[in-house]
Parts: sequence; C-alpha cells; structure tokens
Amino acid sequence: MDRNAPIGVFDSGVGGLTVAREIMRRMPRERIIYFGDTARLPYGSKSQDTVLRYSRQIIRFLMTKQVKAIVIACNTASAYALTAMERELDIPIIGVIRAGAKTAVEVTRNGKIGVIGTEATINSGIYADVMRQMRPDIQVTGKSCPLFVPLVEEGLLHDSVTDEIASRYLSVLKGRFVDTLVMGCTHYPLIRSTLGRLMGEDVVLVNPAYETSVELKRLLEDKALTCTLEAAPGEKYRFYVSDLAEKFTAFATSILPEEVKETEKIHIEEY
Amino acid sequence: MDRNAPIGVFDSGVGGLTVAREIMRRMPRERIIYFGDTARLPYGSKSQDTVLRYSRQIIRFLMTKQVKAIVIACNTASAYALTAMERELDIPIIGVIRAGAKTAVEVTRNGKIGVIGTEATINSGIYADVMRQMRPDIQVTGKSCPLFVPLVEEGLLHDSVTDEIASRYLSVLKGRFVDTLVMGCTHYPLIRSTLGRLMGEDVVLVNPAYETSVELKRLLEDKALTCTLEAAPGEKYRFYVSDLAEKFTAFATSILPEEVKETEKIHIEEY
Repeated sequence: MDRNAPIGVFDSGVGGLTVAREIMRRMPRERIIYFGDTARLPYGSKSQDTVLRYSRQIIRFLMTKQVKAIVIACNTASAYALTAMERELDIPIIGVIRAGAKTAVEVTRNGKIGVIGTEATINSGIYADVMRQMRPDIQVTGKSCPLFVPLVEEGLLHDSVTDEIASRYLSVLKGRFVDTLVMGCTHYPLIRSTLGRLMGEDVVLVNPAYETSVELKRLLEDKALTCTLEAAPGEKYRFYVSDLAEKFTAFATSILPEEVKETEKIHIEEY
Repeated sequence: MDRNAPIGVFDSGVGGLTVAREIMRRMPRERIIYFGDTARLPYGSKSQDTVLRYSRQIIRFLMTKQVKAIVIACNTASAYALTAMERELDIPIIGVIRAGAKTAVEVTRNGKIGVIGTEATINSGIYADVMRQMRPDIQVTGKSCPLFVPLVEEGLLHDSVTDEIASRYLSVLKGRFVDTLVMGCTHYPLIRSTLGRLMGEDVVLVNPAYETSVELKRLLEDKALTCTLEAAPGEKYRFYVSDLAEKFTAFATSILPEEVKETEKIHIEEY
C-alpha cells in the first residue's frame, strides 16, 4: 500500500465537504479525492438497497484512483453501506457514525443522548445500536428532521422559519432531557447556532465530521499510512460529481480553505 | 398502433400522480402504466443533461410495455426533455407545460402571468418562451420555490410555516400585478388553498395537470387512439418505481380514486 496515495471521501452531494474540510485542517499533507453524487442526491429519503448500490459504484470509482483509505462522509450511506463495504474491501474504510457516537457516549453526564438526522439515518436506528454496544444503559432518542437540508440549501441559516421548524423538531428531545445532541447529518453543523440556542447551553452538540477526522488520523497512524510527501498545492485535492460541476465548484470554494479550480463530472452508473 | 394499448405516464416521483388522476377521471377506460423515479428524485435541482438521460431511460422502459402514447407528468422533465423526445419517438408524447401555458394565455385579462416551479423549470424559461410564441406581448414573471416540495412532502399543507414561505415567494409576483398564476410543479396543487388565499381572489390559478388531461383526450381522439375496450378493474393501472415501492403504494392509494394494490420496483438504469 502506498502511504502517499490519496484518501477517497464521498457523500451524496456537498454536505461531505464539511468532513473533507476537517481532514484538510487536521492532516494538511494528505491528498483527497472527493466524490459528490449530485445526480442522485439526496440519499436520506431512499432505501438501504438503493443507497448500498450507489455506494458500491462510488467506491469502485474511487478505487480506480488508487485511494489508500475511504471515508463515507454521509450519515445515510454510513448507516446503510459501511458494514457491507468493510467486508468487501481490502483498504481501511470508515463512516461518520461511529466516531460521533463514541464522543457522545463519552461526554454525556446523564446518559440521555439525542440524535437528529435524515429519515433514513434515524429509521435505521444505527446511532442507538452503536451507542448501546459501547454502553448498554444509554438512552437514545432519535428525531428525523427532513426539512433541515432544504432549509440549509435555501440559505435560511439564520431565519425565523428555520427557528420555528427546529423548535418543533427539537421539542421531543428537550422533553426527554437529553444533555448531548449528535448532529447526524453533514448539513446540520451549518445551523449549529440555532440548534445550540434552542437546546440551551447545558446541552453539548457533537459534530461527527470533526470526530471522524480525529479517528481517521489515528487509523492512518496505526497502519503507517500517513502521507510523507508534500503535494503541490494545485495537485492536492480533486473533486468529482455526477452532475452540476460548476455549482459544486462554487459551493466548495465557499466552504473550503482554498479555492477549488475545477470539478469533473463523471457518469457514476458506469462503475 | 393498438388503440387499446396503455398510456405511459412518468414523473420523478409521486407528483405526477396528480396528472394520472386527472387522466383517470377524464378517460376512465384508458389503461395507464405509471413510472416514478424515486431512486433519483428530485429532478428540479438537476441539470438538463442528467434529466434528459433519465427521461430517455424511462421512455425506453415504457416502450417495453407497448404504450400508445407518453405523458411527461413532470414539469422539469417536460422543460428539459420533451423537445428531444418528440424528435426521437414515433408515438405521441406530451408534457405538462404547453397545456398549462395555453390556458394561462387564454384566461389572463391584463397580460401579466406568474409562473412558480422548481429551480430547473424556472431557470429554463420554458413557460415564458411557450407563452410568448402564443402571444408575443405577454409579460411572464417566473419564481422558483424550492421549499414547496419538501414542505408538501412533510405534510405541512395547512401550516403557518408554509404560509410564511409562500408569502415570501409570492411577493415578487404580487408586486408585478399578475392576474394568472401557473402552478408549474405537480406538487403545488396540494397547497392550492394557501396559494389562492395569498394571491387574492382576482388571480386565476392554472393547474397544468388538469389542462394536460384535456389536451391528451383531444390528441387521442384526433389520432383515433382512444380505448374501446373496458379493462378489468385490477388490470387497468400498473405502477413502477425505482425505489421504495411500498411507500409509493401507500401514497398513491391516498390520492387516487381506487386502491393501489401493488407497485413494482425496477432497475431503471438498465434501460
């Protein structure tokens, strides 16, 4: 295995860029190949069968780029595809769920944790399963928040409508007195201030994107797979999508530390 | 051409069922093959290339069912794929846009028409193009309303949040004094009462689903393609999707005049 090979990161669209950003910050030498499945997004309202099939195609594409490890930077795909893909692959693969779950279990004081995410992620029950394996007495309340992604994509990050919808979604979690809230969808950290204000300052918000970058670093170090060479700045990050490459480039430039010059559109169903 | 063959109807998901429902009401003898692309929805935020490719695959699938005519029951796919598909097909094909545009041009008194739809439909400018071909002095104001579909799918049909969002979206149209509003997305008739109240009683709301069923009937009559046989009740309508067949069945049963017993899931990318 070439330790200087890139890391493959994928998501249904732009949300996984919040994970890529954390990896860039924590491991500035690593090269990244990012794929966003913009022709078939969102994943959060689709079935396990479909999300697993899409994830397999994307991983086959990333393997053609000789990646040394894969990060599933999408909660829904992590919920539905990680276990199967771990069995099928020879290289390390991690999702965003385990690292977020682990941190939540570590920081809770009263053992009551809330999880918010897409319908698929919440219905899978995976956050609760993983947390109970770590600590069986933990109480987990999941709540799907299907309007958060469209509200974020409409740019209503600080808006009375987002406040009203968030207040409805979060009321069940407040009623259960959770002291920890996992933001179980990559878009949600973008409305972190609204979520924090509504939950109150005693509730800790966990961002799985951040925790995943910590876990990835540890994993690469354990396997002696950290990059030892410095790539030329323009060579370090490559972006691929299945649709709307220019729109992706603009969004990626707005949230990543350096300008994204180009995004290549590919036909993912051919993989 | 077999006049007793079924009509093929497709949409990115469930929205096109509002068109299928109008066809069932107006032409109760006709058989229908419906396809909803639930594995790749929504179309409204995707590119013309992608929507055209998806539409071609669906039409190839419908042709395997020996349909006698095709209805594109999706505004985005009508905007992006109809012209190309008309050239490629030997059977009649219609979309939802022309019939809605024609009615709007006929009913407006002051020549000022508003159109609401997805980003793709509005950015394509197709409603304005078609209306100006019919009457060059017409003034068309388009407004994309990306949150309406998620709000409808979340069930917030009569809700203060939907009122607030609709009021923001419609303000530009009210400012232009439109006297006619085209509901240019198949989900929108489900919030018709909200739209009507906000626009005021002097504004006529045009539902392209209804107008399309009128146009389809005329077309089939002109070409001597109306059905002459009565199919057995359980044989009349067949439903296919690319994902989540059971969820589709439940939704279809809730809005169609008779119970939907079964929906078959297929792999649309193989067509």
